[in-house]
Amino acid sequence: MKIEILNTGTELLLGNTLNTHGGWFGRQLFAMGLRVARQATVPDGEAIHEAFGEMVDRADVLLITGGLGPTSDDLTREIVAETLGIELHQDEQALRNLESFFALRDKPMAPANLRQAMVPIGADVLPNPNGTAPGLYLPPRINGRSNCAVFLLPGPPRELYPMFHSEVAPRLRALAGVSDVAEAAELKFTGIGESDFHHGIDAQLADIPGLEYGYCARIGEVDLRLIGSPEAIAAGRDLALNSFGGHLISDDGSSLEATVVRLLREKAAKLATAESCTGGLIANRVTNVPGASEVFTHGWVTYANEAKASQLGVPMEILESHGAVSEEVARTMAEGSLRESGADYAIAVTGIAGPTGGTEEKPVGTAWLGLAEKGGGTLAVKVFHPRARKDFKQAVSQSALELLRRRLVGMG
Amino acid sequence: MKIEILNTGTELLLGNTLNTHGGWFGRQLFAMGLRVARQATVPDGEAIHEAFGEMVDRADVLLITGGLGPTSDDLTREIVAETLGIELHQDEQALRNLESFFALRDKPMAPANLRQAMVPIGADVLPNPNGTAPGLYLPPRINGRSNCAVFLLPGPPRELYPMFHSEVAPRLRALAGVSDVAEAAELKFTGIGESDFHHGIDAQLADIPGLEYGYCARIGEVDLRLIGSPEAIAAGRDLALNSFGGHLISDDGSSLEATVVRLLREKAAKLATAESCTGGLIANRVTNVPGASEVFTHGWVTYANEAKASQLGVPMEILESHGAVSEEVARTMAEGSLRESGADYAIAVTGIAGPTGGTEEKPVGTAWLGLAEKGGGTLAVKVFHPRARKDFKQAVSQSALELLRRRLVGMG
Repeated sequence: MKIEILNTGTELLLGNTLNTHGGWFGRQLFAMGLRVARQATVPDGEAIHEAFGEMVDRADVLLITGGLGPTSDDLTREIVAETLGIELHQDEQALRNLESFFALRDKPMAPANLRQAMVPIGADVLPNPNGTAPGLYLPPRINGRSNCAVFLLPGPPRELYPMFHSEVAPRLRALAGVSDVAEAAELKFTGIGESDFHHGIDAQLADIPGLEYGYCARIGEVDLRLIGSPEAIAAGRDLALNSFGGHLISDDGSSLEATVVRLLREKAAKLATAESCTGGLIANRVTNVPGASEVFTHGWVTYANEAKASQLGVPMEILESHGAVSEEVARTMAEGSLRESGADYAIAVTGIAGPTGGTEEKPVGTAWLGLAEKGGGTLAVKVFHPRARKDFKQAVSQSALELLRRRLVGMG
Repeated sequence: MKIEILNTGTELLLGNTLNTHGGWFGRQLFAMGLRVARQATVPDGEAIHEAFGEMVDRADVLLITGGLGPTSDDLTREIVAETLGIELHQDEQALRNLESFFALRDKPMAPANLRQAMVPIGADVLPNPNGTAPGLYLPPRINGRSNCAVFLLPGPPRELYPMFHSEVAPRLRALAGVSDVAEAAELKFTGIGESDFHHGIDAQLADIPGLEYGYCARIGEVDLRLIGSPEAIAAGRDLALNSFGGHLISDDGSSLEATVVRLLREKAAKLATAESCTGGLIANRVTNVPGASEVFTHGWVTYANEAKASQLGVPMEILESHGAVSEEVARTMAEGSLRESGADYAIAVTGIAGPTGGTEEKPVGTAWLGLAEKGGGTLAVKVFHPRARKDFKQAVSQSALELLRRRLVGMG
């Protein structure tokens, strides 16, 4: 089954918005045992015409994103209908969904939104609970011309992702037939790199009959995906855990922060954070997890030295003699936030994000992490992540959460 | 000048590696006044054949990434030469570059690397100081077949980016000539939606001769892109600012947080944040801006009521009688963080992120924002963003930063 993806949107080609759809679709389809044969991006408007015409003649399934909004450059619906020679009509269900979307938000519906209730005759309307643009599904042979199944989907991820899972995936499974669908597992690791897998177990993974596998390296994280029969997946998982089990974050796709929240919850323990260079990112990641309020109570972003001293009781002498980026400051930040919050665990970070502020002794990318535990000692660790500012923050937050995770599972 | 991009690599379509090339090329070309007409991604191997054949017949310039390495699935060089009917020969300069790359690193050169010194006759070798794969440039009319200028470039960003700037950009400028270069502007707005533009000024923008424009809606933000002659862009900008100038974040593509940091810097003013439901996201966004330490000193993530009371002095009676999500708590959080930090401005947020915790009176999505100013009054505003947890946090952080921005420019 040849699947192609057409992403529409001038902003994707101008580089204003990173096109994450291609990779996202790839991962979802891979987990279903399907592959993307080709992906293309075109600007809004008439360029869609040409690309759509080529792709619909070549592919078995075409997933199109974007251009379903109410404004004049949102033309996907019309271009697809015109190319396939199908009339649009106003769909009553789509209209009612639109009206209830606006009613729920107590906003008037603009006349332009009425275009979003126009549907090619014979198409399924795919409800969009998170936005105004319904998706559309045009089955194969909807008209004389095309054997291709065409999905028109909204561009914004918060609308696209739920719609894919509830509306697109079941139809793809039906189109593909059961035989195309494989089992899949995703194991997340941290503290090791993709090359550790290459050198360590890649050749052995390749020898497992019927197993397909792939790596995805992120900042401070490597994901291993396994696809195949239940036996093949179990063999791959055993191999990976025997070699790298101590670095496993989760075997169900859970993020590091979700894993930390779960572990804290299991211990009925509370966490506090004290951040300098990560600027609130650790607290932000923890509070992205639903239910975080059960385990996370206090966070400090002590960006200035004065804040470290007044809020966390870091002695000014230490700040002056050792500098803000030092083992002593990481320790006293962690201990101060543990004391002030009454939490069971506290993690602290202080480092040099750059682009300026580095020295020969403490170059940009240096950070000290502190971990304090109620009734326990305080651990301090130095890390070095010489990366661009936002990537540095992500890498340091990952190191700090991993330090806590290892403590929570009795490894550090 | 029609520019297309072909990214090759199975890992891009499996989603293992995020394809950032499309957006990156877009930004580089946009800055040169050029645009990408179409981008495509295909797996390694034979799929390149079909896509290359189509694109080289259609485009004036084709930029290809990937598949120049030494392994068996790196076939771009051979497929391009074969399709265009050009012989490959061993290039002496390319060979010497390869040899010196390995000599510099004190490593032996593998026989497989010799393939990387094979060059289509008539092509320019583009030196790659950061890797083994030299780039290649095939000028238009290199053979009878194609009027398209073809660049073969390495996939890894650390090899691609320097090569683009030193070797590709100058050739593109020469190919484009001055006449192709258009001006462009990006205006960011907040507090209004894409549909406000549609009803307000879309028809008038369409009437400006020689102006191309487009919108990009994000959470709590709409970007307006203008492309055309300087006169057309000025007319579009005037129109947008006359209607929505009060909602303008920036006219140079700067983010809301970067704008707030700049405005604070211009006033030599300090900011503190006190966050409950956003969980550190506001501080995280502010500290993503280089130089944030000049204006941002203290942040609190007072997730538990007890933290709001002990750290920011919010009276427990208020928390109990009004609830944590209330005007009074937003006010006292803002005032407490202003007092504790000694900053000039403090923003506070408290709300219900969900998925649980909502009531009929205060449903999930409700948040109160507080803004305190040294020597000024305290403002409190209620917002309602009924969205999934992370989107809610983003929307509330946007509302809070916008409240501060308006105060800093004297509008609120």
